[in-house]
Amino acid sequence: MTDDLVEPVSERRVRVGVLGCGHVGGALVELIDDRGEEIAATTGVRLEVTRVAVRDLGKQRSAAVGPERLTHDAHALATAPDVDLVVELIGGIEPARSLVIEALKAGKPVVTANKELLANVGSELYALADSVGLPLLFEAAVAGAVPLVRALQVSLAGERIRRVVGIVNGTTNYVLSRMSSEGIDYGEAVAEAQRLGYAERDPTADVEGYDASAKAAILAGIAFDAEVVAGDVYREGIAQVELADVDFAHRLGYEVKLLAVAERVSDASGRERIAVRVHPAMLPMEHPLAGVRGPFNAVFIEGEAAGELMLYGRGAGGLPTASAVLGDVLDAARGLGRAAVRRRPMEIVPIDELTTQYYLTVDVEDRPGVLASVAAVFGAHRVSIRSMEQIEIGGGARLVFITHTARESAVQATLSELSALEAVERIGGLLRVLGPES
Amino acid sequence: MTDDLVEPVSERRVRVGVLGCGHVGGALVELIDDRGEEIAATTGVRLEVTRVAVRDLGKQRSAAVGPERLTHDAHALATAPDVDLVVELIGGIEPARSLVIEALKAGKPVVTANKELLANVGSELYALADSVGLPLLFEAAVAGAVPLVRALQVSLAGERIRRVVGIVNGTTNYVLSRMSSEGIDYGEAVAEAQRLGYAERDPTADVEGYDASAKAAILAGIAFDAEVVAGDVYREGIAQVELADVDFAHRLGYEVKLLAVAERVSDASGRERIAVRVHPAMLPMEHPLAGVRGPFNAVFIEGEAAGELMLYGRGAGGLPTASAVLGDVLDAARGLGRAAVRRRPMEIVPIDELTTQYYLTVDVEDRPGVLASVAAVFGAHRVSIRSMEQIEIGGGARLVFITHTARESAVQATLSELSALEAVERIGGLLRVLGPES
Repeated sequence: MTDDLVEPVSERRVRVGVLGCGHVGGALVELIDDRGEEIAATTGVRLEVTRVAVRDLGKQRSAAVGPERLTHDAHALATAPDVDLVVELIGGIEPARSLVIEALKAGKPVVTANKELLANVGSELYALADSVGLPLLFEAAVAGAVPLVRALQVSLAGERIRRVVGIVNGTTNYVLSRMSSEGIDYGEAVAEAQRLGYAERDPTADVEGYDASAKAAILAGIAFDAEVVAGDVYREGIAQVELADVDFAHRLGYEVKLLAVAERVSDASGRERIAVRVHPAMLPMEHPLAGVRGPFNAVFIEGEAAGELMLYGRGAGGLPTASAVLGDVLDAARGLGRAAVRRRPMEIVPIDELTTQYYLTVDVEDRPGVLASVAAVFGAHRVSIRSMEQIEIGGGARLVFITHTARESAVQATLSELSALEAVERIGGLLRVLGPES
Repeated sequence: MTDDLVEPVSERRVRVGVLGCGHVGGALVELIDDRGEEIAATTGVRLEVTRVAVRDLGKQRSAAVGPERLTHDAHALATAPDVDLVVELIGGIEPARSLVIEALKAGKPVVTANKELLANVGSELYALADSVGLPLLFEAAVAGAVPLVRALQVSLAGERIRRVVGIVNGTTNYVLSRMSSEGIDYGEAVAEAQRLGYAERDPTADVEGYDASAKAAILAGIAFDAEVVAGDVYREGIAQVELADVDFAHRLGYEVKLLAVAERVSDASGRERIAVRVHPAMLPMEHPLAGVRGPFNAVFIEGEAAGELMLYGRGAGGLPTASAVLGDVLDAARGLGRAAVRRRPMEIVPIDELTTQYYLTVDVEDRPGVLASVAAVFGAHRVSIRSMEQIEIGGGARLVFITHTARESAVQATLSELSALEAVERIGGLLRVLGPES
């Protein structure tokens, strides 16, 4: 510690306009109001929220957002002369897309937390931001408060990333964590998540993996400087995951997690493609992601030089998300916006070409010869079995298989042929095992 | 995926001079040589290492660093007209300090991985970089490849950080991990770390916590925008940690880790100070840092709005460290250098004022009345005992205590009085338990 005097630094006022005032918008306005003084003291930037656009002017809001700042006219806000920087927190594609375009064209840096927007029309917006030379920052769009986007775009700008594996949806992670730790079944865990506010009344977007797919597209885009949209992402949700699968995974030393995986795939000819998928997977207990529980998010990055990295934190919630937005606002306000990165169209590897190990269960009639006929189907498709366990279930038997590394197309063909066998009553829980990169 | 053509972007050549060519320097030169083409394609910046300054021109080096780039004259490199950006990888305070000053004064952005330099004379260098308006970046100085410095300085620029707790020394974490997982003692684990190259032949800087203290000072500085030097950090190493302590911690549900802790301490009058310390501590098994094993580093950040964050990765090694340096080089080269942050002198809380729970062992003569007299000493200093266990050891007994939350000064006074008791043979392993912030 020294007693040096801190020299006065000139202060710059930056007026912020906020589009949308739900949990995140309200928390952001409060944060800026409360912390503005201290932020100005350390960064030299005095933030001030001058306008907040909302759909319903009459709705009851946090006291922080006084009526004098509220406006109904989002388009006017996006181009207003008393707004230096626009924060888009409306969500969805339109009118968010038009508003972001209007703001950038009016010379205003934009910060957004909108994953749907970026996963669908990101390329158009990045190109526009680039052409007008303004920052378009989106730290909060993937994994909330986890400082992931900047890590990939700036800290790892020189890194050749091999694979990014993330737990990017808190709802499904909460549900799977509760199934794993409490032994409750899927329906019960979803109901509990709904009671606690971790799941929506209609949980489809989360449990079917749509939310995670949008984030996977954004992650793949920034990890590989590629153009990837949500539709490129192979998607499976967790609604088919049964408690029995989670228990069995446990016994084998695995946790079941909904993973977003984006990886670089190079073939023998040197052709580079990327694989992007969201599905439940078995993760070895020792893997750092296996310990990520409840509503937390985490992203595991495998780089050629950096090695393994993991970033962990709160993926949702008003305050944590607002914190990430505030970091972007300050970054843009301090004139440190990201320089353009050229994104390339890159070929997406179809899920059929995935090679990994598989966990799957086959319920069969309990009579001699059945196992042999099931095993023959695996053999015919050259899917090699690493382990098999037979469990008594009411009136029949459940065969639980872990395969050696096999190709997705071969496993799917195996399943399809198995389901046609007379002795097979049901095929259950297919889980891919996370292994080394393909 | 779209078929849009990627527009050509103008390319900028940035000539890099590297001071020092050990593991990190060699790896950096190779990375830039190998990846330069791809980096230019995505970022528009063509990096080129034009000069590398070394002490010994005759020494055998990686093939990548051809003799034509080598120079003996570090001072000439720091101000050379064919160097646009200087990377300092010499380590230590001088001549690194003078070279960084010369480079900044000559108008060159500087990237350094030098923790000692920043933890001792950082304030002087930050102030100079600020006054000449050039970036001085140091992502690699703390926790190697973990993108921590940028996260704290940029992503969390608007966040009010409460506490930062880190495992920032890979050597000690390897040693403690092996003691914990393999049940080998301290000396054996250190010898193993030396064989594997995780520990130096003289391990003092690591095992006594000096390396971690320098990193703790840098972390505290960026987390709280404060002026903190290595000498401000309370320091204890791991040489006193016994296998028996690690085993006992396990039975109680804790891991023993060497932690660097920097926290904001507000007292009733609103006065704000910071506490910075490095010492072995007991960490609940469920804590995300408890699972960080072997040579990995991780830093856990507790923010008021962001909540809990953790960043994890390789804290050392040529390539991972070079990857972090490369990220800074690109950041500076793309003109995105950090704007100045004003650092304030802040009062440091003395270790005496720490309040937490304590683990400690007292070896005593095994005769009636001894426990009562020991307990009386705790009571006299108002140190309340949460649990006590008595273990037979050859010819006497070991009393293992966990206290309730107590003040460091009271615990130290207790120990000092205990050691004067005739029946007390030895006082062992004092460990602080990581609890909620003070």
